[in-house]
Amino acid sequence: MQAAVEWRDDHLEVIDQTLLPGRLEVLKLTSSSDVVDAIARMVVRGAPAIGVCGGFGVVLGLDEGIPLERLVVEIGSARPTGANLRWAVERVARAAQDGRDRALDEALTILREDREACERIGEFGRAELASMRRVLTHCNTGRLATTGIGTALGIVYAKAAAGDEIEVVATETRPALQGARLTAWELTQAGIPVTLISDTAAGAALASHRVDAVVVGVDRVARSGDFANKVGTYALAVLARTSGLPFYAAGPMTSFDPAAVTGAEIPIEERSSDEVRRVGSAAIAPEVAVWNPAFDITPAELVTAFITDLGVLRPPFSVSIGDALQNLDRGTELP
Amino acid sequence: MQAAVEWRDDHLEVIDQTLLPGRLEVLKLTSSSDVVDAIARMVVRGAPAIGVCGGFGVVLGLDEGIPLERLVVEIGSARPTGANLRWAVERVARAAQDGRDRALDEALTILREDREACERIGEFGRAELASMRRVLTHCNTGRLATTGIGTALGIVYAKAAAGDEIEVVATETRPALQGARLTAWELTQAGIPVTLISDTAAGAALASHRVDAVVVGVDRVARSGDFANKVGTYALAVLARTSGLPFYAAGPMTSFDPAAVTGAEIPIEERSSDEVRRVGSAAIAPEVAVWNPAFDITPAELVTAFITDLGVLRPPFSVSIGDALQNLDRGTELP
Repeated sequence: MQAAVEWRDDHLEVIDQTLLPGRLEVLKLTSSSDVVDAIARMVVRGAPAIGVCGGFGVVLGLDEGIPLERLVVEIGSARPTGANLRWAVERVARAAQDGRDRALDEALTILREDREACERIGEFGRAELASMRRVLTHCNTGRLATTGIGTALGIVYAKAAAGDEIEVVATETRPALQGARLTAWELTQAGIPVTLISDTAAGAALASHRVDAVVVGVDRVARSGDFANKVGTYALAVLARTSGLPFYAAGPMTSFDPAAVTGAEIPIEERSSDEVRRVGSAAIAPEVAVWNPAFDITPAELVTAFITDLGVLRPPFSVSIGDALQNLDRGTELP
Repeated sequence: MQAAVEWRDDHLEVIDQTLLPGRLEVLKLTSSSDVVDAIARMVVRGAPAIGVCGGFGVVLGLDEGIPLERLVVEIGSARPTGANLRWAVERVARAAQDGRDRALDEALTILREDREACERIGEFGRAELASMRRVLTHCNTGRLATTGIGTALGIVYAKAAAGDEIEVVATETRPALQGARLTAWELTQAGIPVTLISDTAAGAALASHRVDAVVVGVDRVARSGDFANKVGTYALAVLARTSGLPFYAAGPMTSFDPAAVTGAEIPIEERSSDEVRRVGSAAIAPEVAVWNPAFDITPAELVTAFITDLGVLRPPFSVSIGDALQNLDRGTELP
């Protein structure tokens, strides 16, 4: 199966996620501006996949003879909210001090580490959710959002692979419909039972306990445990709490931003009004004013636990996240 | 301006709301089965407008020589959740005992009363929301949902008509997009500032206090104050409470069901999977399982007040709603 992001000798291949589920088309990205465009247009999306893609973008830019400082700024700011993009771009840029081949090695290492992080999130999550058979998820956090099995959906895949019973309720996730277009498609391909609901039905689904837990991804986590994720995540966290259901956020440590103390420091991307006024090519609203934030902030107190590649982080998050970031610096795992 | 529902000598004229905002087309309904079809397909929607339409449906059926008992069942069950439809159908059926002309008089009276109820909801709401300039609303509760100025949107129109400052944040209201297609269009036509958001952005809008209150309509209110309204309403009520914002539900007393003690007794309509899998003619999801409840139940404890044509009903609702229903029986108003 074609992965969301693959390196082929001298260029990137990515699945054009704007065309799914209608068409599975692979796009070649041969320049750093191709990469910036693919990230900005959400051809590639999902914080981990964007990060990997950005790393290779630096390599492509070096091959074009573009100065490193310009690449860091242009690629690193293609989308502002997810932590992984800037992190990966800066990591590859540091390696590039020792030459283009070291930069490529580093980008390939990031890709491999991302795939491995998904596996470990899957295993930690499988243990944590051992007693849970039905989960509600938002947006897409699977094979299309990462270079591995995914984060929140990685847990679903890990459960399925281990023979555990698992069913998914997927919110459609307006405006870009990643739940309807990508998650429903991906899980259907994998033979995992999935029920699609409109975002408006999530409250009723949780109030009636149609699921045992909510599991979402993360785009950027602050040291406090406040985190940014696809717009609509905050409401699901509030509704899960109101219904007495656990609320998990899953993601690699590369989505944790040591520089952000609380959610107030995370920049929230606002996207085009047309994402809301149109669905695909169809106009659904008049030429009206639109507010279209792509992400929202979920406060730490609504999170049951973060499921990361270093283990399950529990409250108080300022302590557990601090410890995990420190262990990461030392290259060790959580006890 | 063409009203959502108008009686023309021997037939009904309704705006085909499935075609808005792209096309403003008036449909003639000349038989009771036309009426059932228009209600079921949401050509006409909004609990009050459906009620009015159903009343005339009985008259059309009598003109076709269809037995009254059959009309009551067939029209009364065209959509199950809103209280107004069955109430209006039964009221016209009772009048029909005294002949077809009495039935028509009764249907015309229901139409006139609905228009007047909107005016009074608007006035009571304007006083209640005197200090509030920006409201968030869900679905469509205006001129298209009633035969007057509307319920929740009637308050907006009343404030605008009185020269009060008023701005609306409208949720798009998937799956049928009444907020994007109808509310944004209706308010734009009326020159009232409106900002459209995807349903997923409501949490962030409320958490950041972009509005001063949430105001929604009602499809059926139980004696306890639990009420059914367009799916997604419950989440808005929870989010308003979490953000410390007032949450108002506006509707005529014809939406209050004396026979329903709590929300558990209100039937929730489930609609076609295609409403979620498609937007208009465009497929957005694979052929996946869908759960598509058209309404949800908001528990009474999340409601600040009901704004009705008899006045503003406040907690404890079992008392205030009980009193209002009793006053209604006696034909008097609240003190």
